[in-house]
Amino acid sequence: MSVNESGISAQLSEAIKIEADKINHLLTKYLDGSPEELYNSAKYLPSLGGKRLRPFVTITCGRMLGATEEPLYLSALGVELLHNFTLVHDDIIDRDDYRRGHPTVHKVYGEPIAILTGDLLFAKAFEAVILAEKLSGSKGVAQQLVNAAIKLDEGQFLDVSFENKENVGMEQYLEMVTLKTGVLYEAAAVIGGLLNHATMKEDEELTALAEYGKNLGLCFQIRDDYLGIFGDPKKTGKAVGNDIRRGKRTAVTILASKFADNKTLHLMSTISNQDKVDDSVLIEVVEGLKRKGIDSKCMDLASSFGLKALDALSVFPDNEQRRLLVDLVNYAWKRDH
Amino acid sequence: MSVNESGISAQLSEAIKIEADKINHLLTKYLDGSPEELYNSAKYLPSLGGKRLRPFVTITCGRMLGATEEPLYLSALGVELLHNFTLVHDDIIDRDDYRRGHPTVHKVYGEPIAILTGDLLFAKAFEAVILAEKLSGSKGVAQQLVNAAIKLDEGQFLDVSFENKENVGMEQYLEMVTLKTGVLYEAAAVIGGLLNHATMKEDEELTALAEYGKNLGLCFQIRDDYLGIFGDPKKTGKAVGNDIRRGKRTAVTILASKFADNKTLHLMSTISNQDKVDDSVLIEVVEGLKRKGIDSKCMDLASSFGLKALDALSVFPDNEQRRLLVDLVNYAWKRDH
Repeated sequence: MSVNESGISAQLSEAIKIEADKINHLLTKYLDGSPEELYNSAKYLPSLGGKRLRPFVTITCGRMLGATEEPLYLSALGVELLHNFTLVHDDIIDRDDYRRGHPTVHKVYGEPIAILTGDLLFAKAFEAVILAEKLSGSKGVAQQLVNAAIKLDEGQFLDVSFENKENVGMEQYLEMVTLKTGVLYEAAAVIGGLLNHATMKEDEELTALAEYGKNLGLCFQIRDDYLGIFGDPKKTGKAVGNDIRRGKRTAVTILASKFADNKTLHLMSTISNQDKVDDSVLIEVVEGLKRKGIDSKCMDLASSFGLKALDALSVFPDNEQRRLLVDLVNYAWKRDH
Repeated sequence: MSVNESGISAQLSEAIKIEADKINHLLTKYLDGSPEELYNSAKYLPSLGGKRLRPFVTITCGRMLGATEEPLYLSALGVELLHNFTLVHDDIIDRDDYRRGHPTVHKVYGEPIAILTGDLLFAKAFEAVILAEKLSGSKGVAQQLVNAAIKLDEGQFLDVSFENKENVGMEQYLEMVTLKTGVLYEAAAVIGGLLNHATMKEDEELTALAEYGKNLGLCFQIRDDYLGIFGDPKKTGKAVGNDIRRGKRTAVTILASKFADNKTLHLMSTISNQDKVDDSVLIEVVEGLKRKGIDSKCMDLASSFGLKALDALSVFPDNEQRRLLVDLVNYAWKRDH
């Protein structure tokens, strides 16, 4: 396996690019409609790019288990649409003005249209998977997606409610990110597996896909938390100690509350009430956290999820798709941006 | 048929009450979940009551065509949940503070939770119909609901965009209310018909149900527009000429722009910029509209939809369910509140 400096193998990088291009093409085509302004608003966030990792998981898991292409792409599209729906509404809820370096949907189109845009993406997500079920004769695909939609909603609710809570422990935090991130990766993987109607899937295989997806999602999320504070600004494109600057609660800040020294904790709480923070202070915090090994504790956590994801793949025979799924886990925990 | 003064037959009144009680019971049970605050918020709007006419249509059409009870109630529940989802988001979008005499969801729980509450009701609606499909072995139920969800979204978008438009013609208005009201009644009726898996439905029957539902919905809406201006305040519970007071665009105001005399039109435009309007001025407007026969023109429109709905029922043999569906049309165009 040749791995470049960003922790991604050449094969995976190429495969992700190919599938992202296909999904982007499908998104644009699928979101044509009238009234034009509404559908333009629905196309706006997808047009800002994104790695399309969730549909990549669906496509790769599906191919590994012999799914046919058309329903596979339709359901991968459904997974990506559902993800975009949550981003549109979450940005309104979190009052985020920017995403992927561009103004968010509600900033461009106003809140009323943004609410309707999210709802439309939600409905189109279901339309896509229902059509995929119909084409493939498979069952349970829409059910997987609806289950994920309910849990994503519960996860975002917990996230909002945590904002006013003083002490959020690691267990509560992991429950929230499992709902917000783990379940859609889980559904993405399982949906791929459900789409080969010709062979009745073993329960063991679907359970393995669920475990793979959920733990892959958590691995991505915790590595994200790591990069949000310990990432190299030149590579992440974000400021030094970005998440501390924003006062964001992540796995790192929760580990810090338990393991950091008082001086660092005091600095962190001082910063979180300020508008402008000097880089030197943030560097001091980052150094303080590293001194107590909080960076490696965070990576241990990410790795533990990555290992579970890899372990889940052991029920499948070695082939090209399985190798991509392995590489994806390595990428999830080694990526630098 | 014994019809009381509100235009509702005793049989229909009784049947609606029985089904509404069952749906209310199911709603409360189905919206139990954790996090509790989120699910309480989801139960709030359904707890404020409502006639549950859409699920009544599903149940009655389903029974007429021999559907089994459990999946029928589940899909009727899905229809009602989808309706409640749109109310929650529309109230945020329209900045409405009250519904059914109580503060709206976003007034009670705040906008972020209200957005998530709507999304949850949406997801639970699909969960219910997907389960109904699974239990009954029927196909196309979820597809009907997703199709309605997309059109409802387009309809609400048109409604929002009409607010800044000077000249909205009757054709555009009817397109909008077909999307906002007609399509969910249409889906409600067709879903009932799809749920009898034992007998393969004739296309003719499904088309008839679709026509029935759509035109019934439009009949309800146009009668609503009539009552909003010409209704008896003692019976509607709303102020004299309520919709004029609120400057709302309805079938009546569109008919007025074409047929009312200049004096009445001038009065209407004067009123719509004022906070407080004297009842005597509103009575003058209402009288002016009546002088030009705008009340009967509006009722002619409502009746034309009602007649189409009745006509659609002609393909079905006479029985108890069909009689209820006929009574429902009579109620839609004769009701006084």
